[in-house]
Amino acid sequence: MPYFDAASAAPLHPVARQALLAALDEGWADPARLYREGRRARLLLDAAREASAEAVGCRPDELAFTPSGTRALHDGIAGALAGRRRAGRHLVVSAVEHSAVLHSGDALEAEGGSVTRVPVDRSGRVDPAGYAAALRPDTALAALQSANHEVGTEQPVAEVAGACREAGVPLLVDAAQSLGWGPVAPGWSLLTASAHKWGGPAGVGLLAVRKGVRFAARGPVDERESGRAPGFPDLPAVVAAAASLRAVRAEAAEEAARLRALVDRIRARVPELVPDVEIVGDPVRRLPHLVTFSCLYVDGETLLHALDREGFSVSSGSSCTSSTLEPSHVLRAMGVLSEGNVRVSLPRGASSEDVEAFLGVLPGVVASVRERLGAPSDAAPSAGGTAEELVLDSLGKRCPIPVIELAKVIGDVPVGGVVTVLSDDEAARLDIPAWCEMRGQEYVGERAAERGVAYRVRRRA
Amino acid sequence: MPYFDAASAAPLHPVARQALLAALDEGWADPARLYREGRRARLLLDAAREASAEAVGCRPDELAFTPSGTRALHDGIAGALAGRRRAGRHLVVSAVEHSAVLHSGDALEAEGGSVTRVPVDRSGRVDPAGYAAALRPDTALAALQSANHEVGTEQPVAEVAGACREAGVPLLVDAAQSLGWGPVAPGWSLLTASAHKWGGPAGVGLLAVRKGVRFAARGPVDERESGRAPGFPDLPAVVAAAASLRAVRAEAAEEAARLRALVDRIRARVPELVPDVEIVGDPVRRLPHLVTFSCLYVDGETLLHALDREGFSVSSGSSCTSSTLEPSHVLRAMGVLSEGNVRVSLPRGASSEDVEAFLGVLPGVVASVRERLGAPSDAAPSAGGTAEELVLDSLGKRCPIPVIELAKVIGDVPVGGVVTVLSDDEAARLDIPAWCEMRGQEYVGERAAERGVAYRVRRRA
Repeated sequence: MPYFDAASAAPLHPVARQALLAALDEGWADPARLYREGRRARLLLDAAREASAEAVGCRPDELAFTPSGTRALHDGIAGALAGRRRAGRHLVVSAVEHSAVLHSGDALEAEGGSVTRVPVDRSGRVDPAGYAAALRPDTALAALQSANHEVGTEQPVAEVAGACREAGVPLLVDAAQSLGWGPVAPGWSLLTASAHKWGGPAGVGLLAVRKGVRFAARGPVDERESGRAPGFPDLPAVVAAAASLRAVRAEAAEEAARLRALVDRIRARVPELVPDVEIVGDPVRRLPHLVTFSCLYVDGETLLHALDREGFSVSSGSSCTSSTLEPSHVLRAMGVLSEGNVRVSLPRGASSEDVEAFLGVLPGVVASVRERLGAPSDAAPSAGGTAEELVLDSLGKRCPIPVIELAKVIGDVPVGGVVTVLSDDEAARLDIPAWCEMRGQEYVGERAAERGVAYRVRRRA
Repeated sequence: MPYFDAASAAPLHPVARQALLAALDEGWADPARLYREGRRARLLLDAAREASAEAVGCRPDELAFTPSGTRALHDGIAGALAGRRRAGRHLVVSAVEHSAVLHSGDALEAEGGSVTRVPVDRSGRVDPAGYAAALRPDTALAALQSANHEVGTEQPVAEVAGACREAGVPLLVDAAQSLGWGPVAPGWSLLTASAHKWGGPAGVGLLAVRKGVRFAARGPVDERESGRAPGFPDLPAVVAAAASLRAVRAEAAEEAARLRALVDRIRARVPELVPDVEIVGDPVRRLPHLVTFSCLYVDGETLLHALDREGFSVSSGSSCTSSTLEPSHVLRAMGVLSEGNVRVSLPRGASSEDVEAFLGVLPGVVASVRERLGAPSDAAPSAGGTAEELVLDSLGKRCPIPVIELAKVIGDVPVGGVVTVLSDDEAARLDIPAWCEMRGQEYVGERAAERGVAYRVRRRA
């Protein structure tokens, strides 16, 4: 049963499992204690820290183990902001960071600080010059992911790090998605990661803080992990995380090349096999194992369930699959289609056969979802009516219905005519312009309506 | 090799190990995902929550899994204080709480709030009336441990909960040491615990918040665990924690009775076998598996190392075994001897033979440490000199040297005469009065000196 959501959580690497089992017997005691069980635990902890620090590219005393990547980000950002309080209370992030970074920014704003969210291009990449321009004299911290978790696009970390260094601003790099594939480009001041993304166990994050970086841990004082990660350490998990990081790194180059070829196959074949698909994310500068695409006129949740029934586990940034009923902030920042969104992230060892099986199943699954939703089957709209203006009331209807209805009525106005779609679905803001781009129609703009929003589209084709 | 520090961390229970292994295969995926691996993880998480909630005595939706007991306390206290911000910013705790509670109090004070630390009696127990008197109209939260982690004394939780209810103040009970032995007396509003104290894995704490208790989680927003514990859950550890809690509870009554008998034997025999020992903690209302005593004229660190060499792993609240060079805040609050302090906490399954072996080794180990330190061998001081006043300069000397020197010179003044000990060792403040009580001498008091503190002792025997 192919599991294609490694970017969410990877199955435990065999080396991690083995190390975990050994450490359950040897590493359950408190490493701060003086007796033999404590000393044994201490040795394991020290060895795990050294191995992880080597993989990160830092000194062991710069590295703390946290309970998760999210906690590493929360505590790392809060500590760095507090340490640089004198410089100011301004934070720079990219618009496509992990929610733990964006929510840390929201928390800063709630406390009176300010946040600049640097936009990305249609591939999901920040422009280094745009990022540099966001740095201010009162910027306490800048954060940038090494690669995006939803679309795989690599960020220009080295260039942004250079700009931060010039501005005297520490840069935190969220390396959650990439650390298993290789070290982060030099120049970072803080680095975070998450073990279960590379095949380590859940329960372990990394927080590295370079010597000389001002850092003031928030919350109650605690002696563990240089005062940066309170609580009794989960030593067996830490040992397993370190061992598996070393193991995946040893096979990273080979496995990356293999998975990259599989992902390239998906990127090339999906648009051939499935009509009206947009592949999103940078085609070259990207994670080796991850590819994301969106299917017009498809309901993301139905698509996920249908793929699950066929035995494929993937995730989605479609609005209907999120608890907020909003499309993923990443897709929104990129300005790409969000309906029928599918993220395929291959775990290590994923087979060519599984990928072929996925490509074999996908067209039928998408077609059947489209059929159920009454999606328009013709690519070109009909000859056109005579009404120059037409209002489509899609209020109360959820993605992808407003776009499907738009596609059906665009032929009712002549070329040059305008369809105004009334919608109160958040996804429409993203998907109507994306549909226009894919269909060669003109997106005129949006304006507030009595209920919802009025999106205006001019027929061009 | 007998390990007698279960109160610090217990070896993994076989049931925990078994459950952990199974959950490594079944529970590595994200329980928030819709595909089969996610649904399977969700089922495991729900089952673990139900089992744990039953053991705690709360509803499943009142219980969150945190990465440790410390994080449960930090986040639970911060959230409860924030939720009751309108009532005020006053926190009541006992003086002998876990450091995670006391440090949370320090953090509150640093932010402008206030803390009342309710004193304890010589047994380590708070007086319910004294605790009730500390509650004020602006008290946002009260915290009390179910039983003390260093001396085993049970706290009057039910009485204090009653007082809190009357005052309209939520009570947080830290049940870290007791939850494996049984549920907490009813009446609490929040409850915390730590799985590795009952034989579960590290990496799992519990935070229960009763419906209706005002709670506002601090820090960046996160959807996991009702918004109370951010980060990807360590599901295998959570499953193991729940399974082992159920298992230890099933055998708790029988095992508690067995360990209580072993502890009673230690409590009775140590004072017979070792001269100048003070057994501390309540003799009856206490945890079944834990006993603490202090040995006059003994250096705690040396004692721990000597016991370790003999194969016994214990811990200590002596100043010389802590990084701050201060005696444990628990022993200080109780006003008992801190030098040569030993905490024995028996793990489940500890054998009578191991306890006998410990009792067999202890007298020789203590005698040898005392001999090395030149401790006075006579219980009664010599006939006495003629100088009515005598000043003993122990500046720069660490525990237990100042007390040893005091014992040696007390005979140099006549009955009624006064010895003034000059010391800059924090332990002296605790150990000189404790020595006086054990020796039948009169502790007059302390006053500031040019360097350190002058402790005055009047010879009575």
